[in-house]
Amino acid sequence: MKVIAELGLPQVIITREFAAPRELLFRAYTEPELLARWLGPDSLTLTVNQLDVRHGGRWRWTHYDADGKGYVFHGLYHGTPSPERIVQTYEFGERPGHVYLNTITFEEHDGTTTLRQNTVFQTVEERDDYVRADMETGIRASMAKLDDLVTRLAKEARHA
Amino acid sequence: MKVIAELGLPQVIITREFAAPRELLFRAYTEPELLARWLGPDSLTLTVNQLDVRHGGRWRWTHYDADGKGYVFHGLYHGTPSPERIVQTYEFGERPGHVYLNTITFEEHDGTTTLRQNTVFQTVEERDDYVRADMETGIRASMAKLDDLVTRLAKEARHA
Repeated sequence: MKVIAELGLPQVIITREFAAPRELLFRAYTEPELLARWLGPDSLTLTVNQLDVRHGGRWRWTHYDADGKGYVFHGLYHGTPSPERIVQTYEFGERPGHVYLNTITFEEHDGTTTLRQNTVFQTVEERDDYVRADMETGIRASMAKLDDLVTRLAKEARHA
Repeated sequence: MKVIAELGLPQVIITREFAAPRELLFRAYTEPELLARWLGPDSLTLTVNQLDVRHGGRWRWTHYDADGKGYVFHGLYHGTPSPERIVQTYEFGERPGHVYLNTITFEEHDGTTTLRQNTVFQTVEERDDYVRADMETGIRASMAKLDDLVTRLAKEARHA
């Protein structure tokens, strides 16, 4: 996994390869029961409240810590999500008005899919807060779980 | 009017002061018949197709040139638009998937409102394309027309 968070830029780019077709990655991002199995750091459990996967549709999920405290994230899908691209606005429930834009693309070559997540923030300070909140640890853990999930789904598909 | 488009940053920030309360600026941004009177360069006429001013609502407008060719822009409102803040995704109809995020804030002090428009793009290249498309000329013309409009509305309100 590669994380590019250039100093002074209101942007974070994450890339990672998966040994699975992009249709499976798209499913892992857009089916609530699959998403709940990989998204977020190991210390939190995810409840997917809503994934209205269409242009203008709302999404909302909540990360719960061991004490039951919930951290809500929510936003909108811009454009029709597809195995090529998902564009979403994001807002942390405790910081209304601080919105960021996520563009996730899936490129497949010879059975390997390169995931690229491009996040742009309203300010460099927002980006820095995001990086300081130890997002990288959470994203590394998420990506490892996502890898397990799509690898297993790909194996199941081959043996089906 | 101040335009900040720092080299290498996927961002453009525009600030301008208006001698009008922010409620009037908010109306000029959210009422179709007012918006059509100021938005866009002088060479184009604007048709507002849709302004569903609420969280998740869609907006769409078309700039027509003298030959009748239309340039469609559309997107979504993220968060409930208010005289404090409007957050919108933007997409040019001819470039699907290339989405940018606009945050417009209105700050009022002693009857003067400072408008700040913060646009973040998915890449620096997108930002550069936007700047090269002579957006500054269009925005300067728009802002001058917006100034005329809200100044007139403010006068009417004082004499009402």
